[in-house]
Amino acid sequence: MARSRLTPERESELYSAVLDLLGEVGYEALTMDAVAARTRSSKATLYRQWGSKPELVVKALRHNKPVQLAEIDTGSLRGDFHAVLQRTDDCQMEKNSALMRGLGQAVHSNPDLFQALRELLIEPELTGLGLMLQRAVDRGEVRPDNPALSFLPHMMIGAFAARELVEDRTVDQAFLIDYAEAVVFPALGV
Amino acid sequence: MARSRLTPERESELYSAVLDLLGEVGYEALTMDAVAARTRSSKATLYRQWGSKPELVVKALRHNKPVQLAEIDTGSLRGDFHAVLQRTDDCQMEKNSALMRGLGQAVHSNPDLFQALRELLIEPELTGLGLMLQRAVDRGEVRPDNPALSFLPHMMIGAFAARELVEDRTVDQAFLIDYAEAVVFPALGV
Repeated sequence: MARSRLTPERESELYSAVLDLLGEVGYEALTMDAVAARTRSSKATLYRQWGSKPELVVKALRHNKPVQLAEIDTGSLRGDFHAVLQRTDDCQMEKNSALMRGLGQAVHSNPDLFQALRELLIEPELTGLGLMLQRAVDRGEVRPDNPALSFLPHMMIGAFAARELVEDRTVDQAFLIDYAEAVVFPALGV
Repeated sequence: MARSRLTPERESELYSAVLDLLGEVGYEALTMDAVAARTRSSKATLYRQWGSKPELVVKALRHNKPVQLAEIDTGSLRGDFHAVLQRTDDCQMEKNSALMRGLGQAVHSNPDLFQALRELLIEPELTGLGLMLQRAVDRGEVRPDNPALSFLPHMMIGAFAARELVEDRTVDQAFLIDYAEAVVFPALGV
């Protein structure tokens, strides 16, 4: 691969534009032409730097830093949950939802993309949630054999997906708090 | 529109092939050429009969009959839930999941498609679930002010979406029963 002539700032700007476009038009409709136009770069530069559209998208996804859940430890599950929400503003949640939608079908026919989506948006969250739940179990807030423990990802992903499908809106902090109080904490016996 | 020369059986066969293709390749990649090849019809026939790809897909979605939840009434919420599952076999659930994936991004840029998806896969389920829950409230199984009542669609859609994203599998009856016992019934206080 040719040596890069992009500064880290420029690279970061480019990745961010790719993720915005992905959320707006979806993976299928995201063309190198559209990326070139949005970022005012030449297609030649894009191809020289990233080789192909899947590579560019995967790199863009990997560049985006998810919220670090693992650092949060307030002493109660409810407190941890609120702290997580405070770190992710509504605008970021809307962007993440758009990204998930934009990747939709594409991830099922492109294993690299699926892997990048999992690594960026799913696994860090699952790991963080897992630690948070383990602390709640250790403190005695949640029984270790509570069967809802393994379904937390399903409950949370459902909140995001259904908000869009049923209500045609994206999630925000207020909605997630209501949902946690109505569904997640009762299921966990908290 | 020209008079149809397709028999109802042929039409039904065609719609079913469109939905299969949609689940396999997604809306963007579903071309009239692919539909023509799969159904061994001419593109001219497809265009004469349906005008355009969105119209064809919307008609195909509308033609597909969802499970009628409203007829189910076993006398308990748990019983109703099991009865619903028995009416939808695992193969049909896999097809529905593939359809949702296949429609993914496309529904957000095509209001007719979004409306068809809602009418086919979402609203009948929500209406049926609503009646089922209302009966549970009337029987005293669920408190009328239980805040989880309005989140049942979110809990259920989450089960479908997360099963794919987290576990890379589609839902089946056994999974849905475990999920309902661990999450849905406890949240509803049943």
